[in-house]
Amino acid sequence: MIAGLGLLISSPLWAWDGVVEKQTFEIDSFTTQNGETIPNVTVGWESYGELNEARDNAILITHFFSGTSHAAGRYNADGKPTGYWDAIIGPGKALDTDEYYIISSDTLVNLNANDPNVTTTGPASINPDTGEPWGMDFPVVTIRDFVEVQRELLESQGIESLHAVMGASMGALQAIEWASAYPDRVERLIPVIGGGVADPWLLATLSSWAAPIRVDANWNEGNYYDGEPPTDGLKEALKLVTLNANHWQWANETFNRDWADEERDPAQDISARYAIEQTLDDIAAARAELSDANHLLYLVRANQTFMAGHGDSLEEGLAAIEAPTLMLYSENDLVFAPQGVRRTAELIEADGTEVTLETLEGNRGHLDGVLSIDQASDTLRAFLQ
Amino acid sequence: MIAGLGLLISSPLWAWDGVVEKQTFEIDSFTTQNGETIPNVTVGWESYGELNEARDNAILITHFFSGTSHAAGRYNADGKPTGYWDAIIGPGKALDTDEYYIISSDTLVNLNANDPNVTTTGPASINPDTGEPWGMDFPVVTIRDFVEVQRELLESQGIESLHAVMGASMGALQAIEWASAYPDRVERLIPVIGGGVADPWLLATLSSWAAPIRVDANWNEGNYYDGEPPTDGLKEALKLVTLNANHWQWANETFNRDWADEERDPAQDISARYAIEQTLDDIAAARAELSDANHLLYLVRANQTFMAGHGDSLEEGLAAIEAPTLMLYSENDLVFAPQGVRRTAELIEADGTEVTLETLEGNRGHLDGVLSIDQASDTLRAFLQ
Repeated sequence: MIAGLGLLISSPLWAWDGVVEKQTFEIDSFTTQNGETIPNVTVGWESYGELNEARDNAILITHFFSGTSHAAGRYNADGKPTGYWDAIIGPGKALDTDEYYIISSDTLVNLNANDPNVTTTGPASINPDTGEPWGMDFPVVTIRDFVEVQRELLESQGIESLHAVMGASMGALQAIEWASAYPDRVERLIPVIGGGVADPWLLATLSSWAAPIRVDANWNEGNYYDGEPPTDGLKEALKLVTLNANHWQWANETFNRDWADEERDPAQDISARYAIEQTLDDIAAARAELSDANHLLYLVRANQTFMAGHGDSLEEGLAAIEAPTLMLYSENDLVFAPQGVRRTAELIEADGTEVTLETLEGNRGHLDGVLSIDQASDTLRAFLQ
Repeated sequence: MIAGLGLLISSPLWAWDGVVEKQTFEIDSFTTQNGETIPNVTVGWESYGELNEARDNAILITHFFSGTSHAAGRYNADGKPTGYWDAIIGPGKALDTDEYYIISSDTLVNLNANDPNVTTTGPASINPDTGEPWGMDFPVVTIRDFVEVQRELLESQGIESLHAVMGASMGALQAIEWASAYPDRVERLIPVIGGGVADPWLLATLSSWAAPIRVDANWNEGNYYDGEPPTDGLKEALKLVTLNANHWQWANETFNRDWADEERDPAQDISARYAIEQTLDDIAAARAELSDANHLLYLVRANQTFMAGHGDSLEEGLAAIEAPTLMLYSENDLVFAPQGVRRTAELIEADGTEVTLETLEGNRGHLDGVLSIDQASDTLRAFLQ
């Protein structure tokens, strides 16, 4: 996936060297669209490439449900690149760091609240008014609130206009919301594997992700910060996220019917597992260590409430978009129904806004928007010019 | 869906009147394929139409994961038909009760252990050796064990050969196993929305259904029969079953973004729900009242262990099938990947066995095999003759 090593060596001397420094941005008092006030909102951010003097070469990358601001690069000079879109972000790549200033920030209620590289504000944060974690007293926040935090971050750097905004999945929702809420600030829109609204299928899918956490007795209505967190429920939630974000083609091409433990036959032992179950359990357990269960519930809700423009009409919310739009999606997406993506394209296009709709190929379903993005490199490069 | 009222009136005098009587069949001592012994195995069964003197007009219907032996008819003369395949079973229908003796039985570890119309043996049953419910000490049982119980039931009625065996989903697995294990007893095979093996995708999907039960503290390693059962976990498991067995087309054509309670806006209240969530929760709650959580875990395992023939080779298991085969499936099936169904057809056909593969249309995905079966009436009628 990482094709840039040769390019790194042959790039201009001032090229971005792939090392990123995580920084934080603080808002003393943030007011949500619902009118709730959150003191001391702090989010992490990182950037790749340099902001030009005109401050008009910025591309904002908005992250997906389980993602972070780490879209590209490595955290120390002798480390390897670990950004999720290293395939397209870097010197000479589709999102060329020799040309663009690429910036990404952690959202509010970011899932990975316990990741030392993530800074976010949510239920796990201390409410300065009480000195205790917010828990379920944290206000509901929406995709639009995520956008408003990003707007303030960009304004703090003197950036009034974006060359492009691009994001996958929940990142697509943020990108769409940016272009709908601030049509005069977004020059190009690139939603990947996401549509203009959380349709009923997505409402229900997200609901099923929340369920195992609420069933876990340790969840305790969200009050677990001074006790045992609901790790079992969180793991099962994350297992479902992994499964739903993939596709049967991937499962059946990657795994077989091997047992997890060759000495424990699932046909003889009701507690034995198959290898694919163990792999999904192991992935979930590793993610759960960095994640917060309440944050997952708030992310579920932020995604559920999404409709472009957050008004009464999806048509109006999407008609507000003026930026030329490139939509990338998978016909095998089990999270964002392809029908909804195509409908979103039609509604953006309805008043004459230019829309290009392209499919991503692969066996990962929804995840092809993250893991197989390199196939869109030429399309992205051309669209950004 | 029930198209038979006119036909009922115009049928011969001896036609089946649609009233079914649930009966039970007992095996004093049943030995599983694993060599475990289960005393006093009892299962419910019902039949529609009359067994002829030659005892060669029997069609066995094998039920799906959350199903029962109630494939057709009504339990009392003034009730309405409530069988899941009333659309195709009855006088003059595709599975014509004027011609065939149609029989169906509850499986071992049937999900609906608390339904008064269901008789099954599983973890919720009393182990006569201890006088206590089996719980997780119940032996793992497989699809082949289900078939063996059915074989003994049929033999008790002098039925040595089946005109056909037909079932949907888990019922398809039983039907395939029948034709593979007893090729000289099955004249026609009709697997609906199921394939020859639980592929890795299905292994993982089934695993996710089990997860909420295991997370629920009331599950208590399966020991809940003298306390509070894990109802919350069971409900969430059943919600997932409902969701996975459907398709985004159904969700998006049936629901909108309405709130469950018009006074509780999900964007303002983290505990509020959308209408689709409430509907799925209500369906799950109703099902949970009749279901047993441990039985769900054992059904998950029975499905996971399935490979036609239960030997080392899927190819051999399917090659053993000699019966002309009609496979019905949905290209939108999210549980049994259509690729696996087509592969099953190829492997049955490989040694010259006649296979007809037809798709079912609809917006329900997997469930079109149960709810939209009437569209296959003509195909079924012709195939059975």
